Amino acid sequence: LSQQNKTLLSNLRSGDPRALARAISTVENHSPGWIDLLKELFPHSGKARTIGLTGAPGAGKSTLVDQLATHYRKQKHTIGIIAVDPTSPYTGGAILGDRIRMQQHFSDPGIYIRSMATRGSLGGLARTTADVALVLDAAGRDLVLIETVGVGQDEIDIVRLADVTVVILVPGMGDDVQTIKAGIMEIADIFVINKVDHDGAERVEREIRGMQSLAMRTDQWTPPIVKTVASEGRGILELADAIAAYESHQQKQGLVSQRRTQNWEVRLLEMLRDNLLQQARATFTDGELSELAAQVAEHKRDPYSLVEEIAGRMLQSSAERRLK
Amino acid sequence: LSQQNKTLLSNLRSGDPRALARAISTVENHSPGWIDLLKELFPHSGKARTIGLTGAPGAGKSTLVDQLATHYRKQKHTIGIIAVDPTSPYTGGAILGDRIRMQQHFSDPGIYIRSMATRGSLGGLARTTADVALVLDAAGRDLVLIETVGVGQDEIDIVRLADVTVVILVPGMGDDVQTIKAGIMEIADIFVINKVDHDGAERVEREIRGMQSLAMRTDQWTPPIVKTVASEGRGILELADAIAAYESHQQKQGLVSQRRTQNWEVRLLEMLRDNLLQQARATFTDGELSELAAQVAEHKRDPYSLVEEIAGRMLQSSAERRLK
Repeated sequence: LSQQNKTLLSNLRSGDPRALARAISTVENHSPGWIDLLKELFPHSGKARTIGLTGAPGAGKSTLVDQLATHYRKQKHTIGIIAVDPTSPYTGGAILGDRIRMQQHFSDPGIYIRSMATRGSLGGLARTTADVALVLDAAGRDLVLIETVGVGQDEIDIVRLADVTVVILVPGMGDDVQTIKAGIMEIADIFVINKVDHDGAERVEREIRGMQSLAMRTDQWTPPIVKTVASEGRGILELADAIAAYESHQQKQGLVSQRRTQNWEVRLLEMLRDNLLQQARATFTDGELSELAAQVAEHKRDPYSLVEEIAGRMLQSSAERRLK
Repeated sequence: LSQQNKTLLSNLRSGDPRALARAISTVENHSPGWIDLLKELFPHSGKARTIGLTGAPGAGKSTLVDQLATHYRKQKHTIGIIAVDPTSPYTGGAILGDRIRMQQHFSDPGIYIRSMATRGSLGGLARTTADVALVLDAAGRDLVLIETVGVGQDEIDIVRLADVTVVILVPGMGDDVQTIKAGIMEIADIFVINKVDHDGAERVEREIRGMQSLAMRTDQWTPPIVKTVASEGRGILELADAIAAYESHQQKQGLVSQRRTQNWEVRLLEMLRDNLLQQARATFTDGELSELAAQVAEHKRDPYSLVEEIAGRMLQSSAERRLK
């Protein structure tokens, strides 16, 4: 471990927010030593509760997360918030505005907020978010709130890795939003109908109930529906109670470690995939990949056989590969 | 090559739509022999022009694609359409309805339509779509139209792999849609403002122009804005002309093979990643991955070192790895 990382680690563990910011940037940008840093942080992690919150654009996620954070701060919990919006890589303005609002609201160092709008190319945002959550966890934050715009598979992958997943819906959205809702239906431990004072709240509730009758859960838990008006702070206590009830259910049924194990199965494979890809890239000399791609584009070479050939050369015989 | 694949291949090449459907299913579901089938098909591919079309939910993509297909059919081109909507894995109803509508409309065997709503877990929808496009290409379709809901990175990856990318916008959408638009701004070769008879069309056009002044293209092409009312067939001819103009620009500038080479670079890495991951999975004995994940979840083992260890054992020394 470099001296720089040692200092960073010790400052991080003592609660220095600047060290936290630096550690997160190191991990997010895959700066030199990022893996070593994560290795060092890992033994200090595992204590934080992670809560994932997702919903369609305009569902009021930021406001809800803001209110929930305020609630937990009253209970003296320290908070880390990761706000992920991969749909807006260029117009970071909206997110930035949100974050500035929140940071003004919380001059409190007990709340640390990090926005991530970067779209991973082949790596993946889910993995980076999980790594950043681990940093916040290891830095001693009691609660890590992960907020995503629920529009695609990436976002589903992100919140699925939390201990508790909250899906936020709002009344009065069209049919297309219904299809988005369907995609994240199965991952909800708790539903929130936000802006419940708007027309159509009952219809949304009926739709959730209708979908629930089709959903299959193996853990004896029926996701409750919590009604909120986040902008007025209404229903936040009930949401916190619902989260606590689910956590208690998980503990009673021994589901916490089961869920974390399942999540680590997914993550280990993702990490392995990234590691192998990185090494695969490294085997290409400058311009070699582009030359091979040109040969394929010109139909001089079949890509399927080519990939098998490259992979075959990279991998040892299966006999030597056994792990144990 | 199995006898089954041989028959399939010969029927496919002779234009049998049932063979086409079977070949696509084989590739989509990764049924036994799918890679061998692709290897056989590859030499027959490369002749089709692929056009990717994407836009927010409700932008009228299906109707536009429908009209464009009708237009190309009048010119005696054969068409394959791939309609991808990864946001609706459960409520396939809407898509199915669309497709039934289109299939009724086109009793013509010169148009083949395939819906894909499956969300890939670790594999990836972009790759499957590209493989299916290759099947349509090898089956002799002149044009392959790929239609996606523009909501996330997956969809961007999908249409980016086409020869021409069309981004469809509509007037009167809120700010959240603007952020989605920004995400796909850079991939548009042609913009369509559909439903141009609705209020706000000029504002959308102004916004596109505003964004264009910031965009950096290296290919001397300013994406034109085509105005359509797809439901009435208005502007379809202009869209086809814009597509033809871009294709002609690409040919003149020698950009076709450049773009295909760039696309193959991305695809080769993705295929390599999938191949390596598959082999990584295969190295785990039953329950082994889950056991390792449990050890990580219980903090008995650090996942970062673990992954390096597994990858290290899988890979040969770099000396043996050189490709050439």
